[in-house]
Amino acid sequence: MTAKPLNDLLNWRYATKKMDPSKAVPQEKVDAIVEAIRMAPTSSGTQPFELFVVSNPEIRSKITEAAGGQAQITDGSHVLVFAAWDNYTADRIDNVVDLNVAARGDLPMLHTYYDNLKSNYLPREAEVNYAHAARQAYIALGIALVAAAEQEVDSTPMEGFDPNAVDKILGLKERGLRSVVLLPLGYRDEGSDWLLPMGKVRKSRDTIVTEVN
Amino acid sequence: MTAKPLNDLLNWRYATKKMDPSKAVPQEKVDAIVEAIRMAPTSSGTQPFELFVVSNPEIRSKITEAAGGQAQITDGSHVLVFAAWDNYTADRIDNVVDLNVAARGDLPMLHTYYDNLKSNYLPREAEVNYAHAARQAYIALGIALVAAAEQEVDSTPMEGFDPNAVDKILGLKERGLRSVVLLPLGYRDEGSDWLLPMGKVRKSRDTIVTEVN
Repeated sequence: MTAKPLNDLLNWRYATKKMDPSKAVPQEKVDAIVEAIRMAPTSSGTQPFELFVVSNPEIRSKITEAAGGQAQITDGSHVLVFAAWDNYTADRIDNVVDLNVAARGDLPMLHTYYDNLKSNYLPREAEVNYAHAARQAYIALGIALVAAAEQEVDSTPMEGFDPNAVDKILGLKERGLRSVVLLPLGYRDEGSDWLLPMGKVRKSRDTIVTEVN
Repeated sequence: MTAKPLNDLLNWRYATKKMDPSKAVPQEKVDAIVEAIRMAPTSSGTQPFELFVVSNPEIRSKITEAAGGQAQITDGSHVLVFAAWDNYTADRIDNVVDLNVAARGDLPMLHTYYDNLKSNYLPREAEVNYAHAARQAYIALGIALVAAAEQEVDSTPMEGFDPNAVDKILGLKERGLRSVVLLPLGYRDEGSDWLLPMGKVRKSRDTIVTEVN
């Protein structure tokens, strides 16, 4: 596969409305998308979310129900569930420190850095920390959308679902996680996706960009 | 420039700690990064943020002060400021509808869709809507990090700054915007960036991924 310019990938992708249920995404393509998510940068390198790669059809049916019946979840072959930490905890940050020490050596600056992080994060309300963790998952979501397009896999980012229901289906609460965003993966049904023939709509550069020279 | 696989870009980039003040990012590379941000997908296509591309040295000095002196903002040649909408308003959503109508025609389904969006968003607290808008900016941030790497431009995502101070410097409050994240652009100072020789630290796939087959 020849690498493509980012701009081509961003123009190729779209929020696929109708996926072809007869086509499954091959494992190596799923793996490439997961790898991009794993490599996504996050604030202070905490990677404060987990990823659920759901191919099981019954579980996907249940998630579809929790998402107002959006059929891409079942017409596609996989759905990625981004699940953010419900809070920052000393244990979770200590694990990040351990990983850094293992990779970079037992540097005093590492401990100082993450001790400061703990004094900053741990006294905050869980909701504030969750909101911060959820944002980090969105960095990975942006990168996942590029990764899927690079693999010529269609995807549809979805916020329209009942997070409590999805948390229950996947047992997230017990693991200190909260579902943030869904990303079904599959292949566009070219003949019957009403959105495909429509042009992409984006604001002009002038509308959203201010230069301060 | 030959396009590179996403995985190479993600491995090349790192949160540059020391930028070379003698090198400026050429305009066409800044433009390519801005274009990727403009093309980034957002929830319901609202693109609920604006981007400030700051090259002015005095303004960058002030932003550095508001960011605990982080020198990448002034050692680099540009800083991108992602500024999210402080709230969703009828006017803002109507502008999105107008843009859709102009691109896709005056389809009844467009009006139905965004009328529903308004009944959902407008009664919510400003803070909830801002949090949602800020997440959308993080999708664009993720894509911007890839775009910068594609352009062989270094970047450093920064959350460690006083948002009120940055809002004041750029006059964001009056425009209904709130600064969310900064992204200095420049070139790594290979000789003196302590982070460059250190290996990238990421959790193993097993640590963050659960397969539900």
